[in-house]
Amino acid sequence: MALTQIAAAKCFGGQQLVCEHDSDACGVTMRFGLYLPPQAEHGPCPAITWLSGLTCTEQNFITKAGAQRAAAELGVILVAPDTSPRGPNVADAPDGAYDLGLGAGFYVNATAQPYAAHYHMERYVAEELPMVLAAHFPLDRRRHGLSGHSMGGHGALTLHLKYPDIFRSVSAFAPIVAPAQVPWGQKAFSAYLGRDPEVWADHDATALVTRQPTDAAILIDQGSDDPFLTEQLRPDLFAAACEAAGQSLTLRHQPGYDHSYYFVASFIDDHLRHHLAAWQRR
Amino acid sequence: MALTQIAAAKCFGGQQLVCEHDSDACGVTMRFGLYLPPQAEHGPCPAITWLSGLTCTEQNFITKAGAQRAAAELGVILVAPDTSPRGPNVADAPDGAYDLGLGAGFYVNATAQPYAAHYHMERYVAEELPMVLAAHFPLDRRRHGLSGHSMGGHGALTLHLKYPDIFRSVSAFAPIVAPAQVPWGQKAFSAYLGRDPEVWADHDATALVTRQPTDAAILIDQGSDDPFLTEQLRPDLFAAACEAAGQSLTLRHQPGYDHSYYFVASFIDDHLRHHLAAWQRR
Repeated sequence: MALTQIAAAKCFGGQQLVCEHDSDACGVTMRFGLYLPPQAEHGPCPAITWLSGLTCTEQNFITKAGAQRAAAELGVILVAPDTSPRGPNVADAPDGAYDLGLGAGFYVNATAQPYAAHYHMERYVAEELPMVLAAHFPLDRRRHGLSGHSMGGHGALTLHLKYPDIFRSVSAFAPIVAPAQVPWGQKAFSAYLGRDPEVWADHDATALVTRQPTDAAILIDQGSDDPFLTEQLRPDLFAAACEAAGQSLTLRHQPGYDHSYYFVASFIDDHLRHHLAAWQRR
Repeated sequence: MALTQIAAAKCFGGQQLVCEHDSDACGVTMRFGLYLPPQAEHGPCPAITWLSGLTCTEQNFITKAGAQRAAAELGVILVAPDTSPRGPNVADAPDGAYDLGLGAGFYVNATAQPYAAHYHMERYVAEELPMVLAAHFPLDRRRHGLSGHSMGGHGALTLHLKYPDIFRSVSAFAPIVAPAQVPWGQKAFSAYLGRDPEVWADHDATALVTRQPTDAAILIDQGSDDPFLTEQLRPDLFAAACEAAGQSLTLRHQPGYDHSYYFVASFIDDHLRHHLAAWQRR
């Protein structure tokens, strides 16, 4: 489980790293950004793994969200994996589309060809990456949360619902909450998982929460001027499912905000504090 | 003096804009980023113009520095112009070098060909842009400061020293303080201004402060692990000149920090507060 540090910069008294390693789950070298707050010099710290959206790499969150300031203040490790396997042998969408293949792994384990060879982002994020992190960094695995944006918000919600003992807290920005019912998700799930609706339901937050709610309080921020709100994101579907299932959800409609990292940056401090509060309740 | 808004995103309750306009100074369309804090809805706000470094556009500061949070809290407008004229008719370095031509205007008015046709960044930043801003935004011109990074730190120091009534406060991150004595500056000044050392002295902060110090308190942050520190930046030269000239200077050596925007983000809030304090003293 060797790890190579390929970049490091001091930031708010801690260290913003970029690391890479040979991934068993994906069968390629995977990169992630990792922010170590100053408190990590003195002992284990809680962590939030951030899952990014379509087209992103490990760079978007670490350069644009401005989360390191609050992470340094609160003593939280931030982990930002890439959004898909990459490399010369990794299949991309036949037409190079932005919403399938490279940069669009959707946090599932693909079973359909050609993606089944490498696209195992669920196993990577939920199983392999936590072990890699624990082996190399002072991470308190009992306080590990998931957050993310858009496709990464889908990843955060679904992987929390499926692995609540690994990711004990969760939040999301403008998540795709019902991929089985919207174009982005239908395209990706068809390509990665085939056509069985039962299989899709296992990767759809709205379906998952109906059958297996958790005792976590979920926080979602959604911009009211997000151009993807009504066709792709549909937070109303998840809110209704949470209410029916008894899942605690705080869904905040933020007036005037769009889908960009300017929106994420505006509320990321609230999300860090949300996770901190969730860990303290346990 | 028409202005076109080409992007807008709500951010920390204010608006992050990108605007463009036909520049008389540069003879091309110029872009700048502008953050309007929520307070700008109710009346004039003070402003800081940020000058970026080599290779940057108007995007780097607005996406990477995380300055909007404090600007929203303090009610400060942030302006981030591009670092050179651009366009099909604008000369670039013959070899496409990163440190001359496009993305490397050095905040001077070029007098040597081929750059003299469009590279008038001093006139653009110090004369034209303040007028454009005053015409379109609620900017309190009596409280307008300059800050910047690397080549932009050079621009901030020199343009404050030359135009202290326009830019009444100043700070810089890892500035090139003595361009006439270092390779980056010697290359750019030779190409833009010719070989006369008297002309160079008019664009060199260390030379300028010797003959025309201001009553401003200058704040400079410099990372101790900056790879450009000893060859290109040389803050020691400026510190000695300030001391000899009686110019107030706070030069902070920040241990372990490099030349990146992770360094800028770590201390940008201090710089906004430095400008606010300078305006309040007047």
